[in-house]
Amino acid sequence: MPRKNSKRPMPRKKLLPKTSHKAGRAPGTMIHVGPPRETPVALLRMDYNSETLTALTPDPVDLCRPAPDATLVHWFHLDGVHDLPLLEKIGSIFDLHPLVLEDMVNTEHRPKLEDFEDYLFMVLKMLHLETESDIIRTEQVTLVLTRNTVLSLAEKPGPVFDSVRERLRNNKGRIRRRGADYLAYALIDAVVDSYFAILEQIGEQIEQLEDELVLRPAPETLNKIHHLKREMILLRKAVWPLRELIGGLQRMESPLIADSTGIFLRDVYDHTIQILDTVETFRDVLSGLLDLYLSSISNRMNEVMKVLTIIATIFIPLTFIAGIYGMNFEHMPELHWRWSYPLLLLLMLCASGGMFAFFRKKRWI
Amino acid sequence: MPRKNSKRPMPRKKLLPKTSHKAGRAPGTMIHVGPPRETPVALLRMDYNSETLTALTPDPVDLCRPAPDATLVHWFHLDGVHDLPLLEKIGSIFDLHPLVLEDMVNTEHRPKLEDFEDYLFMVLKMLHLETESDIIRTEQVTLVLTRNTVLSLAEKPGPVFDSVRERLRNNKGRIRRRGADYLAYALIDAVVDSYFAILEQIGEQIEQLEDELVLRPAPETLNKIHHLKREMILLRKAVWPLRELIGGLQRMESPLIADSTGIFLRDVYDHTIQILDTVETFRDVLSGLLDLYLSSISNRMNEVMKVLTIIATIFIPLTFIAGIYGMNFEHMPELHWRWSYPLLLLLMLCASGGMFAFFRKKRWI
Amino acid sequence: MPRKNSKRPMPRKKLLPKTSHKAGRAPGTMIHVGPPRETPVALLRMDYNSETLTALTPDPVDLCRPAPDATLVHWFHLDGVHDLPLLEKIGSIFDLHPLVLEDMVNTEHRPKLEDFEDYLFMVLKMLHLETESDIIRTEQVTLVLTRNTVLSLAEKPGPVFDSVRERLRNNKGRIRRRGADYLAYALIDAVVDSYFAILEQIGEQIEQLEDELVLRPAPETLNKIHHLKREMILLRKAVWPLRELIGGLQRMESPLIADSTGIFLRDVYDHTIQILDTVETFRDVLSGLLDLYLSSISNRMNEVMKVLTIIATIFIPLTFIAGIYGMNFEHMPELHWRWSYPLLLLLMLCASGGMFAFFRKKRWI
Amino acid sequence: MPRKNSKRPMPRKKLLPKTSHKAGRAPGTMIHVGPPRETPVALLRMDYNSETLTALTPDPVDLCRPAPDATLVHWFHLDGVHDLPLLEKIGSIFDLHPLVLEDMVNTEHRPKLEDFEDYLFMVLKMLHLETESDIIRTEQVTLVLTRNTVLSLAEKPGPVFDSVRERLRNNKGRIRRRGADYLAYALIDAVVDSYFAILEQIGEQIEQLEDELVLRPAPETLNKIHHLKREMILLRKAVWPLRELIGGLQRMESPLIADSTGIFLRDVYDHTIQILDTVETFRDVLSGLLDLYLSSISNRMNEVMKVLTIIATIFIPLTFIAGIYGMNFEHMPELHWRWSYPLLLLLMLCASGGMFAFFRKKRWI
Amino acid sequence: MPRKNSKRPMPRKKLLPKTSHKAGRAPGTMIHVGPPRETPVALLRMDYNSETLTALTPDPVDLCRPAPDATLVHWFHLDGVHDLPLLEKIGSIFDLHPLVLEDMVNTEHRPKLEDFEDYLFMVLKMLHLETESDIIRTEQVTLVLTRNTVLSLAEKPGPVFDSVRERLRNNKGRIRRRGADYLAYALIDAVVDSYFAILEQIGEQIEQLEDELVLRPAPETLNKIHHLKREMILLRKAVWPLRELIGGLQRMESPLIADSTGIFLRDVYDHTIQILDTVETFRDVLSGLLDLYLSSISNRMNEVMKVLTIIATIFIPLTFIAGIYGMNFEHMPELHWRWSYPLLLLLMLCASGGMFAFFRKKRWI
Repeated sequence: MPRKNSKRPMPRKKLLPKTSHKAGRAPGTMIHVGPPRETPVALLRMDYNSETLTALTPDPVDLCRPAPDATLVHWFHLDGVHDLPLLEKIGSIFDLHPLVLEDMVNTEHRPKLEDFEDYLFMVLKMLHLETESDIIRTEQVTLVLTRNTVLSLAEKPGPVFDSVRERLRNNKGRIRRRGADYLAYALIDAVVDSYFAILEQIGEQIEQLEDELVLRPAPETLNKIHHLKREMILLRKAVWPLRELIGGLQRMESPLIADSTGIFLRDVYDHTIQILDTVETFRDVLSGLLDLYLSSISNRMNEVMKVLTIIATIFIPLTFIAGIYGMNFEHMPELHWRWSYPLLLLLMLCASGGMFAFFRKKRWI
Repeated sequence: MPRKNSKRPMPRKKLLPKTSHKAGRAPGTMIHVGPPRETPVALLRMDYNSETLTALTPDPVDLCRPAPDATLVHWFHLDGVHDLPLLEKIGSIFDLHPLVLEDMVNTEHRPKLEDFEDYLFMVLKMLHLETESDIIRTEQVTLVLTRNTVLSLAEKPGPVFDSVRERLRNNKGRIRRRGADYLAYALIDAVVDSYFAILEQIGEQIEQLEDELVLRPAPETLNKIHHLKREMILLRKAVWPLRELIGGLQRMESPLIADSTGIFLRDVYDHTIQILDTVETFRDVLSGLLDLYLSSISNRMNEVMKVLTIIATIFIPLTFIAGIYGMNFEHMPELHWRWSYPLLLLLMLCASGGMFAFFRKKRWI
Repeated sequence: MPRKNSKRPMPRKKLLPKTSHKAGRAPGTMIHVGPPRETPVALLRMDYNSETLTALTPDPVDLCRPAPDATLVHWFHLDGVHDLPLLEKIGSIFDLHPLVLEDMVNTEHRPKLEDFEDYLFMVLKMLHLETESDIIRTEQVTLVLTRNTVLSLAEKPGPVFDSVRERLRNNKGRIRRRGADYLAYALIDAVVDSYFAILEQIGEQIEQLEDELVLRPAPETLNKIHHLKREMILLRKAVWPLRELIGGLQRMESPLIADSTGIFLRDVYDHTIQILDTVETFRDVLSGLLDLYLSSISNRMNEVMKVLTIIATIFIPLTFIAGIYGMNFEHMPELHWRWSYPLLLLLMLCASGGMFAFFRKKRWI
Repeated sequence: MPRKNSKRPMPRKKLLPKTSHKAGRAPGTMIHVGPPRETPVALLRMDYNSETLTALTPDPVDLCRPAPDATLVHWFHLDGVHDLPLLEKIGSIFDLHPLVLEDMVNTEHRPKLEDFEDYLFMVLKMLHLETESDIIRTEQVTLVLTRNTVLSLAEKPGPVFDSVRERLRNNKGRIRRRGADYLAYALIDAVVDSYFAILEQIGEQIEQLEDELVLRPAPETLNKIHHLKREMILLRKAVWPLRELIGGLQRMESPLIADSTGIFLRDVYDHTIQILDTVETFRDVLSGLLDLYLSSISNRMNEVMKVLTIIATIFIPLTFIAGIYGMNFEHMPELHWRWSYPLLLLLMLCASGGMFAFFRKKRWI
Repeated sequence: MPRKNSKRPMPRKKLLPKTSHKAGRAPGTMIHVGPPRETPVALLRMDYNSETLTALTPDPVDLCRPAPDATLVHWFHLDGVHDLPLLEKIGSIFDLHPLVLEDMVNTEHRPKLEDFEDYLFMVLKMLHLETESDIIRTEQVTLVLTRNTVLSLAEKPGPVFDSVRERLRNNKGRIRRRGADYLAYALIDAVVDSYFAILEQIGEQIEQLEDELVLRPAPETLNKIHHLKREMILLRKAVWPLRELIGGLQRMESPLIADSTGIFLRDVYDHTIQILDTVETFRDVLSGLLDLYLSSISNRMNEVMKVLTIIATIFIPLTFIAGIYGMNFEHMPELHWRWSYPLLLLLMLCASGGMFAFFRKKRWI
């Protein structure tokens, strides 16, 4: 990596997104918080049971709430949360609390689980690693689970739920035979899986750093360690509430969640614990790497200093002696002796040899 | 930043305010603790329900307790807590416990929630960042919530509750349709929002520091990191009890708080957790910055040392050789040879070239 | 501060007081542990209710237990715990458990609360800062609370309970109108107040250190930081059990403590939490100061090294060149050229200018 | 150890194994995760009670579920989990939940305990230390415990359960007299014992490092410390869930576990706590070693610097003086004095002696 | 301390004793783990009540279980646990669980408390500090408490229980008037007291180190700090389970423990907490000492560097100037001027004075 690059601040995620413009507004007021988006919001509806599946992209105008005790499971998915009128319509159709709507459009909300008896509301964070900048980007996903309907909202179109859709279409696994709670679980599972992908990529980067540290520690290595530590701090901040959320979901005694779904929730809960473990492990390893880096810098400096000391310690006294006989005093008898020059050279040789032996004994060389 | 400035101690918040002059007084004695204030205390009263709203600045003399089962919500707000007679009058009107009055005038109290059955008493801290000195100032706000009345006291006039007042006046949101507990929630929410504003500003300062560290680390950077770490320590000390307070309020089974207000309290509780998370994150990032700074200082020193070593290691031996032939011995045959000077120069060139190659191989250059 | 002083070990508190001579004794054996005291033990008795107050210094011989359901509150206070016969007499009068007596005379006991149904026994620590040595001294206070009597023992005469006595005498506040439990609370409150005084003084010392660090870091600063960190470690060790004690007292469902005293205990409990918070804050700030100190030492060394490097790097090569033309070879044509001397001087000037510019570019100067 | 070796990255365990290819699959889908294995899966069946024991390697085709209330205990053991059809057959015979089968073949699962009422399912990790590379390898073991049957699966053939088999064959101890729950305990105990072996080896390596640090600290020592710290981090990550698992097993009120087995489970639980304690101790000791290493590097550098300083400080001024009298000015009266040369030598001797004494006094030599 | 000593590895306690040879054995198998012992096992029996006391050294052949409801308390004490046949006999007489016997002979067991309804089984660790090597040695003590009998086993003869024996013989305190549970408490108390003795000695060593650090920090100091930190790590590992044990004993609702013994157990529990507090305090202080040591090394190096820099910075340029006028150019007009030599000397004096003043201003001197 060229040295100049290391002097440019790395691109990085904001420590805290701008939310203060919310200050002073009435709670329950819908204000879209997040990067402005131009693309229109896409609505996708799937109705299925073990026999049939219908996928449609309904016109928001015709949107109405499905009958609660139908034999079908209904999945409404929105790509985009910036169309406030549409969301308000959805809110009135599904009879959502104003705070739910507010949280849906505030894409900087902390993951949480809220039980409104008639429905469960969840805020989740999806992660993906921007390849060119190595920044972890988060995307908010909100879920509403009622008796036979799941409503999911993502910030923008993406491939995360594709696998769920495909399993639904191909009737793979048990997803079509189960209720809305299993669909919600499948969506949460897809979100949690996105964390593993990130951790794997970061794990590889850490291992590369470990090799780099042993082979050729450079000042850039330090910046990379700092960058990764920072990512770990932000990641941990994201995973902790997720673990709480899924733990709460699993312990919750809601009629909306069938007992048979419990074991799957426990499974995804295990995954979040594994993620947390891994994040902690990475932090510990990164701290170790920092220590290793600093120590290797120390070691290297030590080596450099030793060379300087040895050269200087050997030659400075010799130079002094040469200086003595370079003086122009009239009365310096040694200058006129026949063998004083070769004798002096010999003496210098012995002195430097002696010092060399001394350093050797001190294990400095 | 000029270097001299870095030698002046930064202005900063006191670690512990003077409270020892309280020692030995009888508990329940009202003593104003805090900076002395000259401005007269302003009293503001608002009576409202969903239909009507009256705002008045009553004469303390006429002050009396509103009827408990009126259909109106009453909000008494005091800007200033240094008028002890007025407070004592309020205390007797609202039948407040002497310890409550004592806590109201001691502006250095820890945030807390006290349930007196007839009323709830809360001590909160409001924050704002003094722009010129980057110091976080705290201001104490106390709330008393009875069945249909909220009594709020601030240390001095300020804009924090303006947004609540405006929503009341404009009948925006649901505030006018709800009881005194919702008003109390709205006030707490306004206080918590003031924390986000602070955190955002600090977040930006940290990011500036990160850039500064990469581009041009300077000794002042260190002082700034220390200053911010110190602020984080004091901030965390302020937020923890706030979180306890709101958590307690949310779990509390008081008839003074309607069930429907619970979800709003949970929302503001989520905010305090988010604040705590952010404070922890900032602390971790600042610790990382300190490491980064120290490492970059080490790196830089290492680089400087390497240059010194290389120059010294190359020239010290050469100077010694030159010194040898600068000696004035009579019998130095080399001095008289025809080619000894150019040969010596060549030898010196080779020696320095060899050392240069050696350093290169050792990756010191 | 003169440098020699920094070489003398600072006076400091023992990490662990001598208690091993207790090993092997039967539990419940009274052995006075603590510095030997010469002064005779002073006994003070106060009997009061809201109307009357009698203060007397009774002769230990006449000591007898007050009637349990009298309308008076009785306060026995002992200054000094080294008079074992007197204590044994008190023990038999108040029917105290042998372990209580043992704990009363062992002045190195950990703060604790013991419920003997008929009475509560408390061990507390009072603090004061020795001004000349900056050492925190602890003094043990033990309290026995029965239905209408408080028995308090201090290690030596001191002013801590003077404020309580004065409030009793002057009938200030509500102390005379309340029972023995309130008196016990008042005594505990006086003890806890002594902690605030210490913390304030230490807070000021820390702030002085912060200024010192910025203006003129010296090796003594390090010793002071270490000294304060050590005090904080020992202080925290003292405050934690105090917090437990008061927390236990507050949660305790003892008939000896009236419900109306609960709020006062909660208040003093809040104070201990505030003390703990402050101790933690001080520790964090001191850790930060240590980092700051070490970094500023690094910085300073860096600066020193840079000057050395620059001077050496500029002059060592020039000296070498001068050395070349100081050689006494017969055949050095440059020596005889007309302009070689001024040209060489010019060359040297350019070389040093070039190096200076290089250093400047590298931001080393 | 030759220096070049230290520049090769050490072989090490992956921080996070590849699992992301699982993303998007339906939960309950069996996908073998782990290194591909060629060897065929070996099935071993033992049926025993206190009188008889039959060991057979059944043909998977004939596999059927043993009668639940037989008087025999049945142990099925599989070496290898990559034969999915066989596992599916086993799953249908023992009526296992699809998630259990999925966890059996995913060899990167976190240790866990799942209660399916009819049977208990456990995922365990076995450890062994690769001798040539000092890497801790983990192998997954899964157990299913039903009323009278234990089903155990290991990733590959190994000696870990040999001791259990031998005790069964030789009717040693109480294993033959007890039920399937005791067999399960014996297997868990064998797994936990494998941890002690690892810890012992690592303990010895740490002690070797301690000796190495005192006798001849080298840059390789640092890499070894880092390697061991990393292992400890990964080991702790493995042991925590194991402790939870066994703790859960011990607290579980399942009819599958006899009361008399409880004490043995408590015993193995004590072992896991001891393992955790030891891992923590090792981490603390390793941190201490790192500090020690860095400090000894500092010390050594200090010593080197002192030599340089003393030599340079003594000879640089002397060389300067010699340089003065090597100048070729016409008018330098000293040059012509009779005793100036010996006097100058004497002066130089005194100066260097004085400086030497000064350094001695400063305790630099 | 001579320098060579510091290069010999200090003797130290093993981090983990050899226990892996246990792997694979059947649980409940008695295998003596610990240093082999030659001395025969000594058995001592005391039968006492408040009136009579009989002490005998019974022949193991005649050993039989005392009647459970006798009016006497029986104390069997074994010095040595390596006589397996004797222990087996005791096991069958007292009807002990095989795991208890196994734990009795495994001297590396973790402290624990096991309730077998008929009896309580405890494993404790006694400590003593080997004076010549400063290593904390642990010795295992196991206790079995039945209704009227205490069975205690120590690894080897020692003075720890002498004080208990003496109190029994001399009928000192209340020990003879109380039951077997009080005897068990007295033994535990004696064990816990041995910890205080250790902590006191270590406390003194730490204080010596603090003095040493201020007066004459030496590389050996570092090794001592490391040694003490290591001891603290191992000590903490020993005390935590002891605290759990005594805490469990105190909370236990066993008919074997009289209510009146509860307060004594609480007392000894307080002692273990005090021990833990002290261990933590020592660790914190030792960490502080390490920081202090490293900082003082830094400081010292800084001072050394400053001297080098000042000397070099002053003399290197002067030497260069002298070198200039030592050149042998033919045409150097200055060489022939009358006052150039004294003027140059003056110039050099001014330059060095100027630099000295500059350093002074920079506070480097």
